[in-house]
Amino acid sequence: MKKIAILGSTGSIGTQTLDVVRANGDIEVLGISAGRNVKMLEEQAREFHPKLIAVWDENAAKDLAVRLQDMDVKIVSGMDGLLELARMPETDILVTAVVGMIGIRPTMEGIKAGKDIALANKETLVTAGHLIIPMAKEYGVQILPVDSEHSAIFQALHGEKREQVEKLLITASGGPFRGRKRDELKNVTLADTLKHPNWVMGQKITVDSATLVNKGLEVMEAKWLFDVDLDHIQVVVQPKSIIHSMVEFKDGAVMAQLGTPDMRLPIQYALYYPERRYLEGERLDFHKLKEITFEDPDMETFLGLPMAMDAARAGGSMPTVFNAANELAVKKFLQEKIGFLDIYEIIGQSMDRHQVIANPDLDEILAVEAETYKWIESRW
Amino acid sequence: MKKIAILGSTGSIGTQTLDVVRANGDIEVLGISAGRNVKMLEEQAREFHPKLIAVWDENAAKDLAVRLQDMDVKIVSGMDGLLELARMPETDILVTAVVGMIGIRPTMEGIKAGKDIALANKETLVTAGHLIIPMAKEYGVQILPVDSEHSAIFQALHGEKREQVEKLLITASGGPFRGRKRDELKNVTLADTLKHPNWVMGQKITVDSATLVNKGLEVMEAKWLFDVDLDHIQVVVQPKSIIHSMVEFKDGAVMAQLGTPDMRLPIQYALYYPERRYLEGERLDFHKLKEITFEDPDMETFLGLPMAMDAARAGGSMPTVFNAANELAVKKFLQEKIGFLDIYEIIGQSMDRHQVIANPDLDEILAVEAETYKWIESRW
Repeated sequence: MKKIAILGSTGSIGTQTLDVVRANGDIEVLGISAGRNVKMLEEQAREFHPKLIAVWDENAAKDLAVRLQDMDVKIVSGMDGLLELARMPETDILVTAVVGMIGIRPTMEGIKAGKDIALANKETLVTAGHLIIPMAKEYGVQILPVDSEHSAIFQALHGEKREQVEKLLITASGGPFRGRKRDELKNVTLADTLKHPNWVMGQKITVDSATLVNKGLEVMEAKWLFDVDLDHIQVVVQPKSIIHSMVEFKDGAVMAQLGTPDMRLPIQYALYYPERRYLEGERLDFHKLKEITFEDPDMETFLGLPMAMDAARAGGSMPTVFNAANELAVKKFLQEKIGFLDIYEIIGQSMDRHQVIANPDLDEILAVEAETYKWIESRW
Repeated sequence: MKKIAILGSTGSIGTQTLDVVRANGDIEVLGISAGRNVKMLEEQAREFHPKLIAVWDENAAKDLAVRLQDMDVKIVSGMDGLLELARMPETDILVTAVVGMIGIRPTMEGIKAGKDIALANKETLVTAGHLIIPMAKEYGVQILPVDSEHSAIFQALHGEKREQVEKLLITASGGPFRGRKRDELKNVTLADTLKHPNWVMGQKITVDSATLVNKGLEVMEAKWLFDVDLDHIQVVVQPKSIIHSMVEFKDGAVMAQLGTPDMRLPIQYALYYPERRYLEGERLDFHKLKEITFEDPDMETFLGLPMAMDAARAGGSMPTVFNAANELAVKKFLQEKIGFLDIYEIIGQSMDRHQVIANPDLDEILAVEAETYKWIESRW
């Protein structure tokens, strides 16, 4: 029996992780956690019988304790609660499926406790890759990517030597606005933005797909995960999301992972790596698939990608600014307080005013995040 | 230093094997061989300094001995010569790049002498897979595929467990006549047939690509090489030959190898497996590649594929009849003695009249070949 804890069990990745657990029947879920979705946590608790539940919101934690008073489960709250979940003594794998920089500290806690990390939280590597990767090496734990693109690369690299890698080719759908020019994006609505062509995902990541910020974050993550520099990472727009990503090796061979858009595949691959288990679901059907098309990303229109590259090249605390500015901008966009193009404006201005701190520690990273938020709130 | 001998060093695969040797500089070519191309053998001998040269034709062997009298090299001829080359005591790998059933006996000799086999000779597994595969297991040698499709599958399987394989997806260009119907093939010329859309190869294999016999032979080989039954092998027409083949795993992930059409890649992969070396050459350029398209093979028009499937299902000596009939038919087509569709006619009639011998030994296989030739010669 594998034993896992899930940081963020009520979100898109969290619930799909539980789907994988349900289908396989040989994974024990020892811990679950969420911000405040008490109703879903209660359902999950009654189905999976975890020993520990961490609820970010203290009142929600109290509410859950009442709801679950008939069960033998410990309920904790706040950051201390997340950290307790991260280091639970019996678990093998910590699934970090929480969204936002809130995931970094518990991820570090998990690593220090020797847990392999099934990583779905983008912010961890984007803002703190320079801390996390050496820490994972030090504690001898694996970082198992859960994102479909990074999982595809991870699969393509399996059994291969890293020094034989020439280039990573990260595929992108191009989002719902692919083909439009900057002028045409001025008045797009929230509803338009949330129509992702291929994947059903959380709202934040769906907006990030439309701005290509998501792809930018993935490039930054890939740099850390696979120890490849930015000049050896190419983003390829491939609208149908059939090829999930590729690796070009020194001999010219390109290894690609293709599949239907189903996050359960990378989740299951991470949980059982290097084993592959049967996964019930739709298969790619080459009798029906007529074509796979490719384009270059439009870097003039979708500034999320070039801005991310700039942030990554600046390094240090700049990716934190990029990420924090985007996080708050998307929040405002989801609240319909700002327009689509304002997201780029907020990120751009936040980066322009920032003085890079080289090699920041976690406190500095969190301080930069807070400062970025504060500055944006004072202006928008 | 790796040490190799090459069966068929003057053909398309043989000369490209020597290109790979030349580029890497750490492989010693201890033996070369050819049918009767004495001029090229002399050039190769002066460049690579082999210890042994096997020439099939006895007079050609004598001619070569005169040409190379200033060199310290042993020259042998006939089947005994090929066998001596195959078992040369110092070699690690035997490259079997000879075309035709003449390759089987030396391949077995190499296996018995403990050589890994870099296999480019299709007939070996098609007609004698039931003997070769158990023999390779018994002697603990690896069969390293050199064909681009099988190499792609071999690459996709690297590091994976065979029991996790759901399906092999062998890609096919569809050949120069893709899209035409049977009626339109009646009067195609030899020159039309030799215009392969993507690959520059020997004449026999180029005709086999046009008839789809080649793809049929590859399906049969794949069955033996990867221990997958016919119902789990699908041929996918992909006209540009960008994806060299794919594997679908139990979890739905499809791993594919893509690349430019360059046989030096699978040759080099086989010679250095599992290491990948830098290979000078053109790379796939996703800035320029607009699309990859897929079609089902036209099994009504290009009978090479369904006939091969029938032969494989009948098993025993039937694949030998399929292969021998095709070999002689293509020879006659190359001599412009028969038309394109007569190739199918000859294969079909030869198979129809054959009584399958289950589990034939090598003598029986060669007798079936001879008998098939004789019957065809008596009729066409």
